[in-house]
Amino acid sequence: MASGEDSLIARYFRPIATDPGAYQLDDDAAALKAHGEDVVVTTDAIVEGVHFLADDPPDTVARKALRVNLSDLAAKGAVPAGFVLTLALRSADEAWLKPFATALGEDAAQFGCALLGGDTVSTPGPLMISVTAFGRVPAGKMVHRSGAKPGDRVMVTGTIGDAALGLAVLKGGKVHAAADMDQRAELAGRYRVPQPRVALSEIVRDYASAAMDVSDGLAGDLTKLCGVSDVSAAIDLASIPLSDAARDLVSRGVVGLEALIAGGDDYEILCTVPEVRADAFTRAARDAGITVRSIGTVLAGSSAPKFVDAQGREVALERLSYSHF
Amino acid sequence: MASGEDSLIARYFRPIATDPGAYQLDDDAAALKAHGEDVVVTTDAIVEGVHFLADDPPDTVARKALRVNLSDLAAKGAVPAGFVLTLALRSADEAWLKPFATALGEDAAQFGCALLGGDTVSTPGPLMISVTAFGRVPAGKMVHRSGAKPGDRVMVTGTIGDAALGLAVLKGGKVHAAADMDQRAELAGRYRVPQPRVALSEIVRDYASAAMDVSDGLAGDLTKLCGVSDVSAAIDLASIPLSDAARDLVSRGVVGLEALIAGGDDYEILCTVPEVRADAFTRAARDAGITVRSIGTVLAGSSAPKFVDAQGREVALERLSYSHF
Repeated sequence: MASGEDSLIARYFRPIATDPGAYQLDDDAAALKAHGEDVVVTTDAIVEGVHFLADDPPDTVARKALRVNLSDLAAKGAVPAGFVLTLALRSADEAWLKPFATALGEDAAQFGCALLGGDTVSTPGPLMISVTAFGRVPAGKMVHRSGAKPGDRVMVTGTIGDAALGLAVLKGGKVHAAADMDQRAELAGRYRVPQPRVALSEIVRDYASAAMDVSDGLAGDLTKLCGVSDVSAAIDLASIPLSDAARDLVSRGVVGLEALIAGGDDYEILCTVPEVRADAFTRAARDAGITVRSIGTVLAGSSAPKFVDAQGREVALERLSYSHF
Repeated sequence: MASGEDSLIARYFRPIATDPGAYQLDDDAAALKAHGEDVVVTTDAIVEGVHFLADDPPDTVARKALRVNLSDLAAKGAVPAGFVLTLALRSADEAWLKPFATALGEDAAQFGCALLGGDTVSTPGPLMISVTAFGRVPAGKMVHRSGAKPGDRVMVTGTIGDAALGLAVLKGGKVHAAADMDQRAELAGRYRVPQPRVALSEIVRDYASAAMDVSDGLAGDLTKLCGVSDVSAAIDLASIPLSDAARDLVSRGVVGLEALIAGGDDYEILCTVPEVRADAFTRAARDAGITVRSIGTVLAGSSAPKFVDAQGREVALERLSYSHF
């Protein structure tokens, strides 16, 4: 008697809904246990043609949909607790859905963030995957964008700009032409499958005065963090961490550093840490397998963050980040 | 420095994000307080051309997007706690967004379910609004689809089939032609703006052995509830509550009762209640301003529910519910 929608859910998504609170997706809702912690809630959608490409493999689309949300949770100091999924599909295409659901289940298991429920709707338009993810923090301990103080170090995980380069590779053009095969694969991988810094969530909570994930471009996101914290910052462009591939493309003049720090999809964590705790933070992150780098200093004032080159000159950025409208 | 997306959020959605845990939408996530209760999570999306029509007024689209989720929470016995919103738009059209956000804020206030956060993305396709809503229940007290026992009464709130008729009115055709002006307005209103039975949530929790909201058609939804509860049911078609407009259209032969109980978008609560408690449930609901009606009995067995007409004959249904695929 199951309708097409129900059988699709039973077939592909029930096997990955392993949390008891998901009730095997047999109910209208899920129950998330809470024992006095705050439940941190974040939601991010990805749209075909905007956040992923129509020919991106379905397993990478699934991973990206979940990971962009895991990245937010990590930046807020929250430990993953589960997620719900809204899937807008043109058709119930098994060749797409099967690898999508399998990869989603693998990521859910890897990051300890089980599928709790969802909704599947048909659309004549582009595919869209909307995830709402939940994490837990001790009451009142969510890390905010506000809280950065003059004198704090500005720190960032991983490397910046690879995903923007990866998108450029996938779109063809000069970056594609200039990159070698290995660089293309590495950069495209960074665009398609972000590496959320889940292992850093409790460390961010312990050390950061403010944090957010870098999703719309480092420059724009830092500007937002400074705005909410009512501070400014000076960023040393030369200290922004780049991958070998990005460094090579910048050094050969294929792209400018400015494009990398205004490019989206990094899903690294940007945070501010009191000066006296910066070394301990760096060590704790390294022990968790994550490299963090100091890229500048929080300043008093309400002017936009300054980006300063190796010669001490302030560089004006034409564009800070990606915006949908 | 705000991007278009940020200014859109600040302008339209910040004013309605009144919960302190929403942090004025200035952060990447919201914090939902929990004091040992379970957080009930439900998610439902509505898509232009599928769940609402392209020329539906934006205020009704907003209300429907939230209310279909409030309906789920009520059926699970959960008191609303907040929601997040994903909005996929073709453009940031003020003439659409302003009444949309205003109505959303009114409903959020009316039902005690504040906006906690969201994501706004651009799409070349149809508008889509995905809501994930949260409610609270005492630990372990979420009402399930499972739990119906042979001998329980099958009960339903309000009236059934009006929204399906409303959609038929809006699409033109024979229902539109047969209905008078008042009927058209009433039925279209039921399609566009569901009346979630939020006032019944704690009563459902106190009385129902199983419950769900009727969103895809009474017949199909009852079949699902029986399936998960591992029971059958006998439904007395003549006792299914109809509005005056629906009764008139059925009596004139414009539509059959079967179409009404297989039509979607009712957003009433279907539940099962132990026989000895049915009268007390009915009174408690009435005191809360909601009419409930007994429409049949839960039976042992795993066969599909039977629908029996006034002459005691079983009526075979061609179609049980709406399915997206």
